[in-house]
Amino acid sequence: MKLIIKNGTIVTSVNEYKADILVEDGIIKEIADRISCDADEVIDAQGKLVFPGGVDEHVHYGSFGALLFDTSDAAAVGGTTTIVDFAPQEEGVSLIDAIKRQEERARGQASVDYAFHSVIMDPKESVFEEIAKLPEVGVTAVKLFMAYKGTSFYSTDESILKAMMIAKEHGITSMVHAENADIITILQKKYKDAGHTEPVYHYYSRPPIAEEEATNRAIYLAKIAECPLYVAHVTVKGAMEAIRDAYEEGYPIYGETCTHYLTLTTDYLAKPDFEGAKWVCAPPLRPKEHNDALWEAVQKGWLKAVGSDHAAVAGGFETKKQGLGDFTKIPNGCPGVQDRLAMLWTQGVCKGRITKQKFVDLFSTTPAKVCGLYPKKGEIAVGSDADFVIYDTEYEGVISNKDSYHQTDYSPYEGWEMKGRPDKVILRGITIAEKGKFVGEKGKGEWQKCKPYALAYDNVPRQ
Amino acid sequence: MKLIIKNGTIVTSVNEYKADILVEDGIIKEIADRISCDADEVIDAQGKLVFPGGVDEHVHYGSFGALLFDTSDAAAVGGTTTIVDFAPQEEGVSLIDAIKRQEERARGQASVDYAFHSVIMDPKESVFEEIAKLPEVGVTAVKLFMAYKGTSFYSTDESILKAMMIAKEHGITSMVHAENADIITILQKKYKDAGHTEPVYHYYSRPPIAEEEATNRAIYLAKIAECPLYVAHVTVKGAMEAIRDAYEEGYPIYGETCTHYLTLTTDYLAKPDFEGAKWVCAPPLRPKEHNDALWEAVQKGWLKAVGSDHAAVAGGFETKKQGLGDFTKIPNGCPGVQDRLAMLWTQGVCKGRITKQKFVDLFSTTPAKVCGLYPKKGEIAVGSDADFVIYDTEYEGVISNKDSYHQTDYSPYEGWEMKGRPDKVILRGITIAEKGKFVGEKGKGEWQKCKPYALAYDNVPRQ
Amino acid sequence: MKLIIKNGTIVTSVNEYKADILVEDGIIKEIADRISCDADEVIDAQGKLVFPGGVDEHVHYGSFGALLFDTSDAAAVGGTTTIVDFAPQEEGVSLIDAIKRQEERARGQASVDYAFHSVIMDPKESVFEEIAKLPEVGVTAVKLFMAYKGTSFYSTDESILKAMMIAKEHGITSMVHAENADIITILQKKYKDAGHTEPVYHYYSRPPIAEEEATNRAIYLAKIAECPLYVAHVTVKGAMEAIRDAYEEGYPIYGETCTHYLTLTTDYLAKPDFEGAKWVCAPPLRPKEHNDALWEAVQKGWLKAVGSDHAAVAGGFETKKQGLGDFTKIPNGCPGVQDRLAMLWTQGVCKGRITKQKFVDLFSTTPAKVCGLYPKKGEIAVGSDADFVIYDTEYEGVISNKDSYHQTDYSPYEGWEMKGRPDKVILRGITIAEKGKFVGEKGKGEWQKCKPYALAYDNVPRQ
Amino acid sequence: MKLIIKNGTIVTSVNEYKADILVEDGIIKEIADRISCDADEVIDAQGKLVFPGGVDEHVHYGSFGALLFDTSDAAAVGGTTTIVDFAPQEEGVSLIDAIKRQEERARGQASVDYAFHSVIMDPKESVFEEIAKLPEVGVTAVKLFMAYKGTSFYSTDESILKAMMIAKEHGITSMVHAENADIITILQKKYKDAGHTEPVYHYYSRPPIAEEEATNRAIYLAKIAECPLYVAHVTVKGAMEAIRDAYEEGYPIYGETCTHYLTLTTDYLAKPDFEGAKWVCAPPLRPKEHNDALWEAVQKGWLKAVGSDHAAVAGGFETKKQGLGDFTKIPNGCPGVQDRLAMLWTQGVCKGRITKQKFVDLFSTTPAKVCGLYPKKGEIAVGSDADFVIYDTEYEGVISNKDSYHQTDYSPYEGWEMKGRPDKVILRGITIAEKGKFVGEKGKGEWQKCKPYALAYDNVPRQ
Repeated sequence: MKLIIKNGTIVTSVNEYKADILVEDGIIKEIADRISCDADEVIDAQGKLVFPGGVDEHVHYGSFGALLFDTSDAAAVGGTTTIVDFAPQEEGVSLIDAIKRQEERARGQASVDYAFHSVIMDPKESVFEEIAKLPEVGVTAVKLFMAYKGTSFYSTDESILKAMMIAKEHGITSMVHAENADIITILQKKYKDAGHTEPVYHYYSRPPIAEEEATNRAIYLAKIAECPLYVAHVTVKGAMEAIRDAYEEGYPIYGETCTHYLTLTTDYLAKPDFEGAKWVCAPPLRPKEHNDALWEAVQKGWLKAVGSDHAAVAGGFETKKQGLGDFTKIPNGCPGVQDRLAMLWTQGVCKGRITKQKFVDLFSTTPAKVCGLYPKKGEIAVGSDADFVIYDTEYEGVISNKDSYHQTDYSPYEGWEMKGRPDKVILRGITIAEKGKFVGEKGKGEWQKCKPYALAYDNVPRQ
Repeated sequence: MKLIIKNGTIVTSVNEYKADILVEDGIIKEIADRISCDADEVIDAQGKLVFPGGVDEHVHYGSFGALLFDTSDAAAVGGTTTIVDFAPQEEGVSLIDAIKRQEERARGQASVDYAFHSVIMDPKESVFEEIAKLPEVGVTAVKLFMAYKGTSFYSTDESILKAMMIAKEHGITSMVHAENADIITILQKKYKDAGHTEPVYHYYSRPPIAEEEATNRAIYLAKIAECPLYVAHVTVKGAMEAIRDAYEEGYPIYGETCTHYLTLTTDYLAKPDFEGAKWVCAPPLRPKEHNDALWEAVQKGWLKAVGSDHAAVAGGFETKKQGLGDFTKIPNGCPGVQDRLAMLWTQGVCKGRITKQKFVDLFSTTPAKVCGLYPKKGEIAVGSDADFVIYDTEYEGVISNKDSYHQTDYSPYEGWEMKGRPDKVILRGITIAEKGKFVGEKGKGEWQKCKPYALAYDNVPRQ
Repeated sequence: MKLIIKNGTIVTSVNEYKADILVEDGIIKEIADRISCDADEVIDAQGKLVFPGGVDEHVHYGSFGALLFDTSDAAAVGGTTTIVDFAPQEEGVSLIDAIKRQEERARGQASVDYAFHSVIMDPKESVFEEIAKLPEVGVTAVKLFMAYKGTSFYSTDESILKAMMIAKEHGITSMVHAENADIITILQKKYKDAGHTEPVYHYYSRPPIAEEEATNRAIYLAKIAECPLYVAHVTVKGAMEAIRDAYEEGYPIYGETCTHYLTLTTDYLAKPDFEGAKWVCAPPLRPKEHNDALWEAVQKGWLKAVGSDHAAVAGGFETKKQGLGDFTKIPNGCPGVQDRLAMLWTQGVCKGRITKQKFVDLFSTTPAKVCGLYPKKGEIAVGSDADFVIYDTEYEGVISNKDSYHQTDYSPYEGWEMKGRPDKVILRGITIAEKGKFVGEKGKGEWQKCKPYALAYDNVPRQ
Repeated sequence: MKLIIKNGTIVTSVNEYKADILVEDGIIKEIADRISCDADEVIDAQGKLVFPGGVDEHVHYGSFGALLFDTSDAAAVGGTTTIVDFAPQEEGVSLIDAIKRQEERARGQASVDYAFHSVIMDPKESVFEEIAKLPEVGVTAVKLFMAYKGTSFYSTDESILKAMMIAKEHGITSMVHAENADIITILQKKYKDAGHTEPVYHYYSRPPIAEEEATNRAIYLAKIAECPLYVAHVTVKGAMEAIRDAYEEGYPIYGETCTHYLTLTTDYLAKPDFEGAKWVCAPPLRPKEHNDALWEAVQKGWLKAVGSDHAAVAGGFETKKQGLGDFTKIPNGCPGVQDRLAMLWTQGVCKGRITKQKFVDLFSTTPAKVCGLYPKKGEIAVGSDADFVIYDTEYEGVISNKDSYHQTDYSPYEGWEMKGRPDKVILRGITIAEKGKFVGEKGKGEWQKCKPYALAYDNVPRQ
């Protein structure tokens, strides 16, 4: 099965040049000035840009109340050809089994390639020992929650430190959701006691300092454990700076941010008639000054990747209404896997905040490196998977939930403009989306095994 | 009752000048070029310096296994005329009652004036409400322990935040013992599992980062509570810098250090034959680079005061041996109330690290301000209490436990040189110590009531 | 000649307390609870505050086109009892002779005490050698101008470095006027070429960066010379931070700011009809963000003193009109010696930006220390000169040029409110001003000799 | 003319993968899994790494006393296929003519491709106007010297600012040699007056602060001009940090360092018998702490490129002896163009200080971007020039002047080990060096025209 992409302008994380691409059996076989051999399919990319397919290192399917992998065609339509999900550990289930269960949910359902991070939720001694075995099942990151005291997700500093100490011996990347649970508990009570019920109190009770504090603490714990750390969904300036400063001091400390933290603000949470609930996720949306700081951070490399934190709550707005009268009961999570490219390109590249190369870097190349999937994913080079976005920069449109494949009843980006659009999205040589429509066969995504000692270990001597 | 101090050179926190002082009924009535009225007593201070009596804002008597107030003549001999003790709250006892109990222990026993800070150890709801009433009993600071998980001292972030929120409404200064309990738990286990028993593992299991982390966290909590914070016994560079930086950013964040953190190092903990146990206190002694950073900090005003953290463990070294075979079982605490002046003067002023004025500031003036006792204590000015150290700068000697009044069997400063010595120590007009001997009547100390809205509130608008 | 000040509340740089003061022969002889001996004069200060007389370390009389010392009664009326002038060095005149000439101009003319800083304007080899002899004539600071290229004031880095190297060997404080002359030259030309003539271009052509750069450079030169540095009239945040950071790093680097840089903004320069010229001085007035940063700096001790940079241009606004059509030709300088106290108190203390103690510190105590005049000047203590401001905090008024003694035709602070006013100003025991009127005998100021190794040498070992 | 490079492992600034490369007419035509068409030449790179040919953005030929372009085969042997020289402007010659003259010296002589930066040495008004025309002759950077007061190279701040203001309007990158000339003048005199003659005083008289100051000043000037700045040969930690901090604050400020500042120390200058003179270059070699800081800087991207600052003084050590008895008379400059790769690889990659990707980035890709030569130079991608280093990682050897092609009598790196060696060096498809021998035809280098708006303008909106 041969595919040729002709006349396109290839954009990578460092370069931009014109060349043809030959794909065989889902792999890039040749990049050349001109390719004119026989092929099963020839795509003319004249006037279009060719990016590596997107890698979204931060999605949630089927856990935390989110819809399942059968809705992952939304990723494809949005130019993302690989998603990395968090495999939650149900009580009494081992880490490895939790991953296997989650993989079973994805298999035959996911329409793009998929991989997993582990999540520790039941911190028994045996669980910490299992961390060593994660690479055997292709998982090389483990996430811990500093928020959500009183739930099974919550980890004490003691648990985090234990996990970190074992993780680093096996090249596993420690990830944290960094918010100070006690601060949130006190502030939720304070605002509830004062009679506040509206969704915007989700923000007030999870203020920037709660994230900044926990981020700092996680960094200190990583210093004690002498391990690399990857902070998930950094949303505030102070947390970003803590990560940047620790890295610059010489520690292997990294972080990602997400589409919505770059583009949406606390104002959305304040929408009347409980509509703000649609944008309830954790950490919450932040005031604009933080958006600006995060754009600077991704442009300068202080944060490494932009995920979507996609979590399309089943039932949509109706389900969100569980929190009517008590903002702490609003289920967390927003869809976003389909809109990551459009927002990064339109708000980033078109507004001069990031270059085209940096866009590719944040959207595809570095997430692949973070997850140990590079250069199979995230690159246009001979030997890499033939995952592409053929991008039509001329298209102009508007994001609307009616065009969304995430199967919930609202889009957090409703009405935002789109400059350009994936003309075609190609997964391992097969076109799966065209001009905003999913045209592939559903459920053809394949499990990608992550390699240990990924990006966060770049400057850490192996043990 | 009239006393004249003649011909001395008065040294205050800003000035140095020659003048005579007239004391009536324990109060400074007059400072003049020459005073020649009748007096009951005339002290000729020719050739000597006259400092305000020392204020030691951080001592422990009768709690945490320490000896009682009858040993406080050690303070007097060392030039300290006011001690501020921590009134621990036994289980089931209210904060106010705990203070009253502690005051009863001091009354008629303490040989210098005394005041109290409150300590929350039983964090019931009612306790937090009691904070409001502390000023009524002359207590205006409340201390919380971030270390010692698993003991009754330990406070969660939630408790600290609650206490802070109430404290600031009443002008109470929040104090913390800042060490991350979870880090210590993990490291103690790690070193014990590896078979380490020696006292120096007290240091390794309580590393600088554990203090730095907790200090940062306390600062974040204070920011959330919008309250002033005073960090007790700062021992490491990183914690000091966090305090300095927060203050410089505009937050009312302050800290003290202690004599031993300026002068003694981790090497003492490493003394063979378990002798290191004598220097076990928390936070532990630190490597020399931290001493140097702390000298810089006190000289530049980044830390405000130098306390002794005096805690003479009853039974001395014998009691310390409870930790033979398990360094975590060594009782914490070292004597030091007698040696604060000698160490600050000899190691500070004589080595050019601090000026004479800064010495007075750290030893007397600012501690009095921190505790809401200024200008009654801590100053040589008309209207202030007639507490003085008449200092003989010519004396040369050596610190030795045989000259100590703390009634334990070792001195942590054994063999350190003394340049100068209090020729006389005067408490409210009465000479209580002379040339290293207590010459007063024991138990004549009086309870000093602290005023709220003390130094830490200087730049905080009242509510 | 005996004077008693009764019933006042004494405010010093650290304390506030009630006491009576006895003055004999211009010196403070006694401070006491109550003084009731015979006296030539008794002043009842009941309900009033008693400050040490102001020390203005930065004034210009008779040089740079400014009016002469016979106008210095303005200082007295404004609560300043000591002024420190810059003795400019005319071409061909030695440094020592320049000082003697300037002293002759002051003698019998100045109505308050006076002292001098040296200014190098004719940088011959012999001049640098003369620096060593300055202490013999009571001068212990030498100022160099980094601005004004093309004039005789201008010093190259080479000259500054030479001066610094000699100064530090003799305990002389090096001072700089820090603005980058080349930047100003280029920008003046740029704006003039573009047809701009208005006074506000004085600001645009001397932007904050020009000062920030020169301040940094001066600090580097001081590091090379290993000498203390005192930066005159710091006006911008960046320069202040450079000074603060160098000090905090361990270098003896200090700075002052001036009344107008705390309170007036660039908007004054932009007044229409050339009126902005009245506020032309160098460095120029700055945008409000810098005012705010400077208030923070004086409150936190990052800048040490507040001078007036008083320079009342002879002829006033009419003389300023020399710059009509060419903003670079407007004579620099504004009056201000009379208004320093009123502005610091009303805008500082009354607005909660500084405490009363800090006010005394900035207005009197620390300037005296900077100049080597402390504790003779700048303090209320036995043995100090009997210079006082008896302050009526109840008075409310408005600054108006009709009440000014500076003998020029405008006040830069016209219309600003005054909360409180010196009820009496006392110089060496003699009341010289009362309620805004000069009531002394003119020309009775005495020359004060500055001591070397003043404040800037506090942490520098003597050589 | 077709060349195939087979079986190699391609290493780029981001990736590492196996592929064959087809070159036609000096251009990369195809990169593929396997290439088996007919070719004039097939190189088997099995087991070897394939890098893009080196770009040395900082060399001196024929100016400042250095040997001419006929010695540039040294570059080829060392894996550098493009050199960027500085075209000095002789007095009375226009900038454009100076470039043309220098190009004539290179034409037919240079054995690798070459390009030019302009150097302003005769700052007449007309010269500044010429800057606008530089892109017409393929020059897009202009260098100014802040050091060397008293010579024709020296530029005042005024000249630099003028040049910057014009440069940025035309997309020209401003470069500076940053050392404070006045500090050097004073210190040279100081040490000479004290009788010091040895080469190491070259270092003492050009201390780190002299560079740090000038770097800061250049940054301030760039801020005033609102122009990008590229600081040449950064050698000290403080200067590097100033560049990093300015960039992180949002200014387009960049810098390079050179091979010798990463690897050699001041100790070389201190070699006895005047041998230190061999290492005299400006800025001078620095103590080891600076080496370490620079390695960190290149690894983290704080400095962008590593040049050689190759300047092989004609006559070698004999010529250096002009400075016998007066260290200020030692001609500046050391050879190094041949050793850049060996030192970066052996000391950088093999010691774990930089990754292989970062090596390619510093040695080739980013220098090409800085000079506006990318992606023609500095990349292995279809369409780029076929410049390669085929690297044999197995070779082990030692640097020795007998193997050097620079035609002077010593190597500054004599005796340093080499891990690996260019097996072949290919310039536009032609093998010009093999295993340490030049095998090409001399003088076949071609002039490369730099494009304006190069890397330093990446984040600067065009005007």
